Amino acid sequence: MTSVPATGSTNPLVITDFLYRARDLFSAKTITQYQDGEKTFGYTYGEYAERVLRLAAALVDLGVRPGDRVATLAWNHYRHLELYMAVPLAGAVLHTVNLRLEPDEIAYIVDHADDRIVFVDTALLPLLDATRTQRPGMQVITTDGDGDVLPNQDGLIALANPLTTPVSRAENDLAALCYTSGTTGSPKGVGYSHRALYLHTFTACLADGHAISERDTVCHVVPMFHANAWGIPFAALMTGANQVLPGPHPAVSDIGTILSQERVTYTGMVPTVAVDLVQHALASGTDLTCLRALVLGGSTPTPELIRSIEEDLGIRAYQGWGMTELSPMGTFARPPRSAENDPQRRYDYVRRQGRLLPGLHWKLVDDTGAVVPHNGVDSGELLMRGPWVAERYFRDEHPEAFADGWLRTGDIATIDSEGYLTIVDRAKDLIKSGGEWISSVAIEQALTTIPHVAEAAVIAVPHERWQERPLAFVAPESGHTLDPAEVLNSLTEIVPRWWLPERIEIVESLPRTSVGKLDKKQLRRTVENDLFVDTHNGSVAGRLP
Amino acid sequence: MTSVPATGSTNPLVITDFLYRARDLFSAKTITQYQDGEKTFGYTYGEYAERVLRLAAALVDLGVRPGDRVATLAWNHYRHLELYMAVPLAGAVLHTVNLRLEPDEIAYIVDHADDRIVFVDTALLPLLDATRTQRPGMQVITTDGDGDVLPNQDGLIALANPLTTPVSRAENDLAALCYTSGTTGSPKGVGYSHRALYLHTFTACLADGHAISERDTVCHVVPMFHANAWGIPFAALMTGANQVLPGPHPAVSDIGTILSQERVTYTGMVPTVAVDLVQHALASGTDLTCLRALVLGGSTPTPELIRSIEEDLGIRAYQGWGMTELSPMGTFARPPRSAENDPQRRYDYVRRQGRLLPGLHWKLVDDTGAVVPHNGVDSGELLMRGPWVAERYFRDEHPEAFADGWLRTGDIATIDSEGYLTIVDRAKDLIKSGGEWISSVAIEQALTTIPHVAEAAVIAVPHERWQERPLAFVAPESGHTLDPAEVLNSLTEIVPRWWLPERIEIVESLPRTSVGKLDKKQLRRTVENDLFVDTHNGSVAGRLP
Repeated sequence: MTSVPATGSTNPLVITDFLYRARDLFSAKTITQYQDGEKTFGYTYGEYAERVLRLAAALVDLGVRPGDRVATLAWNHYRHLELYMAVPLAGAVLHTVNLRLEPDEIAYIVDHADDRIVFVDTALLPLLDATRTQRPGMQVITTDGDGDVLPNQDGLIALANPLTTPVSRAENDLAALCYTSGTTGSPKGVGYSHRALYLHTFTACLADGHAISERDTVCHVVPMFHANAWGIPFAALMTGANQVLPGPHPAVSDIGTILSQERVTYTGMVPTVAVDLVQHALASGTDLTCLRALVLGGSTPTPELIRSIEEDLGIRAYQGWGMTELSPMGTFARPPRSAENDPQRRYDYVRRQGRLLPGLHWKLVDDTGAVVPHNGVDSGELLMRGPWVAERYFRDEHPEAFADGWLRTGDIATIDSEGYLTIVDRAKDLIKSGGEWISSVAIEQALTTIPHVAEAAVIAVPHERWQERPLAFVAPESGHTLDPAEVLNSLTEIVPRWWLPERIEIVESLPRTSVGKLDKKQLRRTVENDLFVDTHNGSVAGRLP
Repeated sequence: MTSVPATGSTNPLVITDFLYRARDLFSAKTITQYQDGEKTFGYTYGEYAERVLRLAAALVDLGVRPGDRVATLAWNHYRHLELYMAVPLAGAVLHTVNLRLEPDEIAYIVDHADDRIVFVDTALLPLLDATRTQRPGMQVITTDGDGDVLPNQDGLIALANPLTTPVSRAENDLAALCYTSGTTGSPKGVGYSHRALYLHTFTACLADGHAISERDTVCHVVPMFHANAWGIPFAALMTGANQVLPGPHPAVSDIGTILSQERVTYTGMVPTVAVDLVQHALASGTDLTCLRALVLGGSTPTPELIRSIEEDLGIRAYQGWGMTELSPMGTFARPPRSAENDPQRRYDYVRRQGRLLPGLHWKLVDDTGAVVPHNGVDSGELLMRGPWVAERYFRDEHPEAFADGWLRTGDIATIDSEGYLTIVDRAKDLIKSGGEWISSVAIEQALTTIPHVAEAAVIAVPHERWQERPLAFVAPESGHTLDPAEVLNSLTEIVPRWWLPERIEIVESLPRTSVGKLDKKQLRRTVENDLFVDTHNGSVAGRLP
């Protein structure tokens, strides 16, 4: 028996299945649209599916061919969610463009992806000016316009008949494409196959993962232009969860209103937004206990944020860690059974980046490429591979980011004996002081445990004797002031003396990238331009050991 | 861009990954062995993995080649669980043989599978006599013997070094093989690819499915020779759940002890065993509220059983439906969110066979092959396909069970607008009376709602005028007697008059197949042999409309 027949091998893993599943099993479940904290629209999965199938047929009629890229430049709204399914159904690749980028960056990305059509919110049209000049043949369709000047989504839907069968795709064909904002160099494209997103969706619904289920109402706070909103829209469609979309420019007070009004059970967000949400909810008395899970991701939350979500709001906090290159989820921090009933231990687990998701593989390697043991102490660069981990960038650029089928994450990490990951630093953010490495993340975490410190960022500055030394930027909680000398004094009791920053700068707030991560690139520029040195009163010299 | 590179396409979906995951992330989690209700052995996942890797190397040393079949004839114990992983790691196909079959049936199956090695519990050796005579070249290894007469598993493990890398397999290669007991004809082999079992395992861990997680302690009551114990051992390994094995011949009182003593959170079983367990728990005052879920599968539970599990024991009851050909899960009956807090509605959902698992496809067809609508009323034969649905039987036998890539389940069913499946009958168990179909299952369900009826089975008997008429076999609850005329009288109030059975036979208990399903074949033989007619007092003539 050399060739043994396989079970189910002729059924490809394609995400377009989820649309039919949503329509056939969950036709009465709902999608609800908010804008500025007010409900503006709502429909059922049945109505959603009907519009999606018409939109997919319209795309085919417009001449979209299998594998073509169709871009979106849009906020979190139901028409964007329609494109999430209609584009793959038409056999094309959904390219979600980050609306927080500059027009020239957008022009670069759209051109690099060779997008054939762009769907754009009318309010965002100016962001496309450079692109349109550069690509006159590209079709521009508004998601929400009236159709007078440019064709619009509703117009396409009104004229089309529902697609009868999805354009056939193999499971390894691309379904979506995202560009990483990247902190260095040009943006890099990450193509997601149907298979990758399909398996990633299952992972999002695991009881040990985000655990998205039919019983959930999920609110998409994570931008839909950012790594497929963590893949949660696909998970919601697959399980039949109700979905709520906050619309353009949601203020944190709007998010509070939406979560509470729609009795949302699951949401995820970056820690910065969560900090504001907690503050808002406490100040306004908004009850958010409808949430069974508030998942933090995108950057490392402070222990205080986790404690506050759990104790002050009475909500379970979790952490997800990932990258655009991981579709985007790589780990999930959920306390193990042994810690479930002990709040302090629970927070201690959620503070870390969590356990590897089933299906993925990882290893830590040192500078020589040798494997580093998983003992919770030794650190190394984290390498990953698996069915939803990128093995190359779009157009095969940047091959140096991959090694023998492994993605080099660029993160320095430890893994403990229970398999919990702790990201120590970005490889390029480590501080090399006197031949030893100092973790900028560890100092940041320590700084945020000091009373009235809201957030902190640490970067390396050149030093004659020690090669590099840490420099800290610290922002106070609103309504408070900080004295750099006192902050340094408090820090002395928490970290080794030789970690103490060369200088502590008190700033009003920290710069963030377009996806809400600390923008250390900008902080480094600030220092290179010497903006702070000698001109700023809020700094203090650190003491070397 | 005709050929777009895929994400993660070079990482095959192979179940051997789960062993490494269990070892690396969950080394301290436990596997506990019971026998006759007493704990006899226990070890950690770390120790389990070490033994599995040695056993796999031993298999390779024995000359097992990729794709070879290695059989097990064993109860639910830790050495059987070792073989679940060691055989695929050695590149071979795990063939679990049903120990409730007759020796000649076992001989047929082992020969048909061309098993190269059989691992067997010493106590079960006599079941292999016929096979060994027929296949003198086949190696026989005892799981638990002392190694004096035949080699034994511990001996192999002691002599081998751990396998350094798993024998490479493609995801569409077979990992396991089961034979369906079948109610007609010879047993049919169903081969499971790595890919099928891998995806099936993810499904078992979905929040909307069995929801197996790291927080669980699962007890394998379902025999490990029966459709991979519903795939739960693989799910436990993947998530790091603690596992408990009840050992050979567990009595229902032993199961009660184990569940309560080990604080088991999840278990599954056939309704017959669950009926006895409920009765035992109530009589003995055994507290089983440690269970977060008791899943019923293998045959349709009565509404009374579901009510009793929920109300008398205080445990959530669920129903899973599947077939050996579905790896084995096809649907899961979990109440939708809208019914969660209404016990009556909840039971009503769990009574049905549930919603299609994500990844699978289904349709109902009538006699002409035309699609039947999902309106909860019209019934048709259920056809299924998907990544873990058989597309052929082993050695390509019985092609008539498949049509255009669909598996013909042989079940007559309805599907309602919410996507809940109700199995109306096996195609061959429908009763054709006067040109109309009567569902034997519907009459059985109605009979079990009558006080003191424990179980019921309905078959068709030939009838001169009406072509076929129902005949019912009814067993009373222990300690009670039933009067057939009274039963018929009660039934009159529940079902249409023309459904009323021609005759009601009171029997002590109903015959079951080796996997605990109602054995209607045996009941039909009873009738054909006229054992009951005119010689039995416990029958009553039904009245035709």
